[in-house]
Amino acid sequence: MPLKDFSKQPLKIINLGLEAFKDDLQKQDIEVVQVDWQPPAVTDAAVLEKLSLHSDKIKAANDKVLDIIQKGSPVLLGLDIARKVIPGMHDDLILHAGPPITWDRMCGPMRGAVIGALIYEGRADNPEQAEKLAKSGTIKYAPCHEHSAVGPMAGIISPSMPVFIIHNEAFGNYAYCTQNEGLGKVLRYGAFSPEVIERLKWMETVMYPILDKAIRSLGKIDLKSLIAQALHMGDEVHNRNRAGTSLLFRQLAPAIMRTATNMEDAAKVLEFINGNDHFFLNLSMPASKAVLDAAANVPYSNIAITMARNGTDFGIRLSGTEEEWFTGPALVPDALYFPGYSKEDANPDIGDSAITETAGLGGFAIAAAPAIVQFVGGNVADAQKYTRLMYEITHGESRNYQIPGLDFRGTPLGIDVIKVIENNLTPFIDTGVAHKNPGVGQVGAGVVSAPLEPFIKALIGLSIRL
Amino acid sequence: MPLKDFSKQPLKIINLGLEAFKDDLQKQDIEVVQVDWQPPAVTDAAVLEKLSLHSDKIKAANDKVLDIIQKGSPVLLGLDIARKVIPGMHDDLILHAGPPITWDRMCGPMRGAVIGALIYEGRADNPEQAEKLAKSGTIKYAPCHEHSAVGPMAGIISPSMPVFIIHNEAFGNYAYCTQNEGLGKVLRYGAFSPEVIERLKWMETVMYPILDKAIRSLGKIDLKSLIAQALHMGDEVHNRNRAGTSLLFRQLAPAIMRTATNMEDAAKVLEFINGNDHFFLNLSMPASKAVLDAAANVPYSNIAITMARNGTDFGIRLSGTEEEWFTGPALVPDALYFPGYSKEDANPDIGDSAITETAGLGGFAIAAAPAIVQFVGGNVADAQKYTRLMYEITHGESRNYQIPGLDFRGTPLGIDVIKVIENNLTPFIDTGVAHKNPGVGQVGAGVVSAPLEPFIKALIGLSIRL
Repeated sequence: MPLKDFSKQPLKIINLGLEAFKDDLQKQDIEVVQVDWQPPAVTDAAVLEKLSLHSDKIKAANDKVLDIIQKGSPVLLGLDIARKVIPGMHDDLILHAGPPITWDRMCGPMRGAVIGALIYEGRADNPEQAEKLAKSGTIKYAPCHEHSAVGPMAGIISPSMPVFIIHNEAFGNYAYCTQNEGLGKVLRYGAFSPEVIERLKWMETVMYPILDKAIRSLGKIDLKSLIAQALHMGDEVHNRNRAGTSLLFRQLAPAIMRTATNMEDAAKVLEFINGNDHFFLNLSMPASKAVLDAAANVPYSNIAITMARNGTDFGIRLSGTEEEWFTGPALVPDALYFPGYSKEDANPDIGDSAITETAGLGGFAIAAAPAIVQFVGGNVADAQKYTRLMYEITHGESRNYQIPGLDFRGTPLGIDVIKVIENNLTPFIDTGVAHKNPGVGQVGAGVVSAPLEPFIKALIGLSIRL
Repeated sequence: MPLKDFSKQPLKIINLGLEAFKDDLQKQDIEVVQVDWQPPAVTDAAVLEKLSLHSDKIKAANDKVLDIIQKGSPVLLGLDIARKVIPGMHDDLILHAGPPITWDRMCGPMRGAVIGALIYEGRADNPEQAEKLAKSGTIKYAPCHEHSAVGPMAGIISPSMPVFIIHNEAFGNYAYCTQNEGLGKVLRYGAFSPEVIERLKWMETVMYPILDKAIRSLGKIDLKSLIAQALHMGDEVHNRNRAGTSLLFRQLAPAIMRTATNMEDAAKVLEFINGNDHFFLNLSMPASKAVLDAAANVPYSNIAITMARNGTDFGIRLSGTEEEWFTGPALVPDALYFPGYSKEDANPDIGDSAITETAGLGGFAIAAAPAIVQFVGGNVADAQKYTRLMYEITHGESRNYQIPGLDFRGTPLGIDVIKVIENNLTPFIDTGVAHKNPGVGQVGAGVVSAPLEPFIKALIGLSIRL
């Protein structure tokens, strides 16, 4: 597979750094997108040569991967306690976002969330005790992604937490995710104050049983259909989930009314969801995970089926490279910061939520969500340019998810790592921003481009297997 | 006020008829929109001259009207029975959509809806009895619009029907509208079979008390905010109301849970709303009505504060011409027809729902609703062109309602009848299409341009008053 001849491509310039140059180009009506400077996409010539020898097999493998993703059919079946349903979960295990990491390398918000989880589990009475236990060696850590799960931001799943059960009906596999806690002081952003723990307990003892009963009474809730509709209603289901949350709410409410025994509790559950437009994120994520997991382990495929960050490292996994993680340092997102905070307070990029981009949603579908274009320059044309750029690095377009503002074109789908290297263009990811210290919480929301390093390593990793 | 000098305007061509000519222009990159042919906007030179003598007063009056509309603040307070709350309602009165009309001139679907209403009221046992009573002279007819009310399609409101109570908090006036019946065989499209009557009875005896109690427990529901949000989520709140219905549902459900006594009935009410994405139309309409009624009776203003159709006539009222209706024949909409139906089956344009366009929503905001662009040519650019055209005939832009795809520009607001005549361009209206015969129902949905005649007459009517 020879690298693309750039001279054959239509004139489009990705400007690296200097704003004035961009302005000049724009005056000349040349399509231009301002992106952060990236090192040149250098990689060993032998790697590229080896890959090009197998280009037919790679193409066929990628077609197969894309077909599996397109056919994926995620439905919500109900909830259960993590310990009971997540494969390999045990009392001393804590799952976290991103690639594998040890306590000593964990960032502030992830440490904060671990501390909170140990207090929540009754394993510690206060943060000091929790921290001691956390680094004692008794507690084991593993990525959510290695246990069929995903978690936003710190992504902590501890044994007692209730999790949504998502079933990929087309391929039979499952994915799991906690219930979304809402905004403000929340565990996923590293907060662990008493109000955070109290809310988690309410979510376990009140919300979880009510939701589980209601969902099971419906048999299932079709998440593929909800996501498709949400994209027609201004969501990209990563940083904007108002439509998804609304449509889910419409299905849940009558079912809750029929199945709940305490109507005051039931009303509070509905009010909690109504007060949290991000509630649906914890379903769009495992829906994406369930679909992508089914496409794992297709030899020769260079399509990324995982992108995830633990706040220290950014990691990806390819379909053709089994369970191996390829990592590089996580970057600090460009963001709109809450009053009183700046980029200096920000933790590097964190969370499994980049699974949405991996599935052709989130930043890849930002053109579907004009209400959040302030994250990408402020106008609709900016958002459309970002989405259009992502078609340059994907193997195809979604048959399920469309962008109304691009005349219902399918979203860019299937991150092709060779194209990432060829175009020196990494995936564009929507994200929330956590404070770098434990116990603080969210300080902003914005966008980030993935670092190049994991993609270069992944290509080498694939070439070794050929 | 001299008529605009067209040569000073940017080159934009409204093509009247010949498609090939349009195609040529498009190849030259000139903005062009295909519209139906209209007779030239001829009107008496003396009329225009008289208006131009008063141009300052007209401008000031229009500014005042627009300011009142911008400040309008419609909230939903609850429901009550029409007889008890609608001013002037009595046992022998039936309100209908559009300008005044007598039984002998009523179109098929309006007659069908009157027949259904008389059966619903217990005034007749069968359609034959109902028709006899309807034309006997005992039953009186009046426009909804003359009783602070609006109704979609036939717009029939009979004394026992529950109606939503909308309060314009900024100006103190009220507006009323029935609950939306859903799709299929429904009264507003002229159907009157037993299932139609049965549903209306359920809406009166089960849905109305449950909704009323829930809404009153909340104090009020802010419709201005819901409409603003719905426009960010792909609704234009006339032919698409999925987001508005969803956001309303989120507020209603917890309140219903707290106030309803029979949870099975309550669940059925939520399911009914969940099954009917047009539920919010019967709130976006009276919200528009309440806002526009406050702007009535500003002398000198040529801004239309009513556009309504009874299926025979299309009527408008201006702020500066008191209660007078200016009418012309209603046109048959261009539409997407349901399988088995064509334009030959269609009744001319009918319903008070054009109140949404009069308030800068509906067809004027079609660019906000890409999911229904198939009604206007199939792509997003078509929808944006229609919205952009409407800025040519409006006095200003909404400060409340925005179009995401046009970088959150305010919707075109305040139909200026002088501009309509100057540009020979009438308002563009989204609409449902009823079968022309009584008892059938909906056969399609589409768009229609208002006829020119009422606007010419209105300008004469205004000039007489100066």
